[in-house]
Amino acid sequence: MLEVDLNCDMGESFGVYKLGMDHVLLEHVTSANIACGFHAGDPSVMRATVRQALHKKTALGAHPGLPDLAGFGRRNMDISPDEAFDMVTYQIGALQAFIKQEGGVLRHVKPHGALYNMAAASKPLADAIAAAIHGLDSKLILYGLSGSTLIQAGHQIGLRTANEVFADRTYQDNGTLTPRRLSGALITDTEQAVQQVIRMVKEHVVVTTSGKSIPIQADTVCLHGDGTHAAVFAAQLRTRLLEEGITVKAMD
Amino acid sequence: MLEVDLNCDMGESFGVYKLGMDHVLLEHVTSANIACGFHAGDPSVMRATVRQALHKKTALGAHPGLPDLAGFGRRNMDISPDEAFDMVTYQIGALQAFIKQEGGVLRHVKPHGALYNMAAASKPLADAIAAAIHGLDSKLILYGLSGSTLIQAGHQIGLRTANEVFADRTYQDNGTLTPRRLSGALITDTEQAVQQVIRMVKEHVVVTTSGKSIPIQADTVCLHGDGTHAAVFAAQLRTRLLEEGITVKAMD
Amino acid sequence: MLEVDLNCDMGESFGVYKLGMDHVLLEHVTSANIACGFHAGDPSVMRATVRQALHKKTALGAHPGLPDLAGFGRRNMDISPDEAFDMVTYQIGALQAFIKQEGGVLRHVKPHGALYNMAAASKPLADAIAAAIHGLDSKLILYGLSGSTLIQAGHQIGLRTANEVFADRTYQDNGTLTPRRLSGALITDTEQAVQQVIRMVKEHVVVTTSGKSIPIQADTVCLHGDGTHAAVFAAQLRTRLLEEGITVKAMD
Amino acid sequence: MLEVDLNCDMGESFGVYKLGMDHVLLEHVTSANIACGFHAGDPSVMRATVRQALHKKTALGAHPGLPDLAGFGRRNMDISPDEAFDMVTYQIGALQAFIKQEGGVLRHVKPHGALYNMAAASKPLADAIAAAIHGLDSKLILYGLSGSTLIQAGHQIGLRTANEVFADRTYQDNGTLTPRRLSGALITDTEQAVQQVIRMVKEHVVVTTSGKSIPIQADTVCLHGDGTHAAVFAAQLRTRLLEEGITVKAMD
Repeated sequence: MLEVDLNCDMGESFGVYKLGMDHVLLEHVTSANIACGFHAGDPSVMRATVRQALHKKTALGAHPGLPDLAGFGRRNMDISPDEAFDMVTYQIGALQAFIKQEGGVLRHVKPHGALYNMAAASKPLADAIAAAIHGLDSKLILYGLSGSTLIQAGHQIGLRTANEVFADRTYQDNGTLTPRRLSGALITDTEQAVQQVIRMVKEHVVVTTSGKSIPIQADTVCLHGDGTHAAVFAAQLRTRLLEEGITVKAMD
Repeated sequence: MLEVDLNCDMGESFGVYKLGMDHVLLEHVTSANIACGFHAGDPSVMRATVRQALHKKTALGAHPGLPDLAGFGRRNMDISPDEAFDMVTYQIGALQAFIKQEGGVLRHVKPHGALYNMAAASKPLADAIAAAIHGLDSKLILYGLSGSTLIQAGHQIGLRTANEVFADRTYQDNGTLTPRRLSGALITDTEQAVQQVIRMVKEHVVVTTSGKSIPIQADTVCLHGDGTHAAVFAAQLRTRLLEEGITVKAMD
Repeated sequence: MLEVDLNCDMGESFGVYKLGMDHVLLEHVTSANIACGFHAGDPSVMRATVRQALHKKTALGAHPGLPDLAGFGRRNMDISPDEAFDMVTYQIGALQAFIKQEGGVLRHVKPHGALYNMAAASKPLADAIAAAIHGLDSKLILYGLSGSTLIQAGHQIGLRTANEVFADRTYQDNGTLTPRRLSGALITDTEQAVQQVIRMVKEHVVVTTSGKSIPIQADTVCLHGDGTHAAVFAAQLRTRLLEEGITVKAMD
Repeated sequence: MLEVDLNCDMGESFGVYKLGMDHVLLEHVTSANIACGFHAGDPSVMRATVRQALHKKTALGAHPGLPDLAGFGRRNMDISPDEAFDMVTYQIGALQAFIKQEGGVLRHVKPHGALYNMAAASKPLADAIAAAIHGLDSKLILYGLSGSTLIQAGHQIGLRTANEVFADRTYQDNGTLTPRRLSGALITDTEQAVQQVIRMVKEHVVVTTSGKSIPIQADTVCLHGDGTHAAVFAAQLRTRLLEEGITVKAMD
């Protein structure tokens, strides 16, 4: 039986600043990655987001990031593995407190932005993040770029992992995403994006920018949370996946 | 049998900035209140402090404060009870994560600075803080100014409480501390400070600035963490309490 | 000849977070109060806002606030007059640098939110803020609540001042604004709001919630920057003021 | 006539956190680089430091850094040239405000930590920083690693520059500092450190770790501000320079 999870970053508002359309996306995704106050989110936003996601029975995940609110956690920072270990621990713990009070359970952890990208390539960072998560709860699922160093670090320490793929990004021959600064990085055609996901889930392959088919594991698809198009695409993708006989659900 | 707990604020360093003499004070106190990153402390300092305290078998407490690093959490801020609820939840959760990874147990919570003072007098804030703690773990002990609104809020919701007294501060007839800006607020004579504590523990009274004896409950004594005098006084107080037949230990 | 200035808070975005409709409001106001990075704004937003306002020949003002991004500078903080002095200095200086590079001139300073409100009532804070501004440039104009302690502090030290009034807020008999938490604090009828401003400018009076007419000085009117209604109201007010023979312009 | 400037980073305290021994170092250095609130320093510390330095007639410099207080501005961050331009502008402006109020003049700008290191090697960052400084005041002196890309960017835009050398660091054959993580990076022998400086100033050469003599320009020497050894070394170096007929003074 074919299954896939749809995840979305959420709880990215901060104080008076509103970001994202969480309530709309929650109609379509099966997993919510909730910002923990470093790159986005604040304590009140975290509580509200946990409540909304619980109400929709969406699986709850922590979305720890770099301490860079001004840069939204998207600027690489030269942090040490020990610092990564402690930052991730701090943020997951903070979110767990809200989830505990609201009667839920933390299911997964997905690093955000630059932390996600750096951990996809750096074994010391990946190992530190995996160890922090494992030290908190060995049943947590680690989300990372499909086939990346972060996924490998999770396996090695004994965590379950979710290989994340992207619907609207193209892939290079080495299995990494085409950098956004290059032309052809984004898939703007909805049908093409949907087809890419279906093929990833059913055939475990993706066609790269050079036209080559390479193997890829797709446990979860990353959906964007902003823009009205985001919700429309999420609905379309979900419908099409169901039509293809693919069950859309969070990992157990 | 007479018992009293000695507590000290710890983990107040931040990045390259060092504050306090935690390793020295840990030789003398029975409870450590660990800063959680809002008014002081950072993730790496939190881990190091948890480790040090566990090594000394000191009882571990969270020390949540206002989000005001520049003011060290000492400036009153007009936060709502809901904001207090969420801030306290966030900070306790973050600390619990480090304690979990390091193999310890969180025993108590003591609000810091302006949050402590505001909660001592404001029932809405006190109720919010007590509810946040209770919602996380109903076995946690709430530390607050002896006899204050915060202690009452803890009782009311079903938390165990620790009435905190001060060795080196004088008391007014209404049971509150003499504000620091008034003369006679501080007790600079060591013997007088020691005697005040002994009398509080043995006779449940304190002599106010007007010479009146008023009732006071002393479950825990707050010791300062900075200055070389702090450690010397802590050692002296501990010795004198033992001589008086008072057991110095954390609450069960 | 009757004149009045229309001012609006601007540059309140931060990183990826967007707030306000500055480009629309800039079509209608004559003075821009630009956030300086403490309660809102960041260096890149500050530069962009200075450029936009210069392009529209809008008078440039600094809008310093409390160091509380999470609370948008709206939560009172118990800062000392010295701290206020230094915070205001820092923020004005930062903005002046952008204005210098972009070829403009700083014309006025208006404290933001809780700092504005506290300075309207506290003489030590008002004096500190006025002194900080005067120490930087004695030709700057100090914006404050009409007739408030802040305006008096400005006069006393030798600054020009702009008495600020509100179109959509009601006034109490003592000349202060009706607190937002009370019913009748807001004027939701556009015509009534316009009439209030016209009467303030032409007759120097405002009708309070009790029906009494009290004297008021209206040098500048505060317009809101968010919501589509804000721009519509700004346009309407401007048109009506012109019809009444009132020139809408920044102070010289 | 031989001259050299001695500079030291100052004003690195923050809130209750104290760092450095500014009052002692001010007895020995001729230029003070004052932190501007991003990696260290706060508005009150900035004012106090400006006052102290003015009192000692030390030349005043801005020391802008990355927005990373937790990392003391020492962790590389992947900021864009535009962000660097705006960050540097903001911080210099803030410091200029205090200097203006206190009656002094800003003489130079030296980027801090990771910003200094990144600008020493990256032409886009170096150009952005030089342009920000030039846009504020074309008479400011840009301090940078001797012979680095930052110094070249300063020349190119028309700024005066100060080539900075280090007394206690060794140099590699390509003229860069031996990275701290390598053995032999630090010179711990005082006499050797003094000799290195004297030779740099008198002969314009430095002996690298491989024993080779390479040309180097030494306009200013960086002295450390913390530790008691720092002050002792500063005094010794100053005395020895005078004995060698080298005038110790800030650049005109």
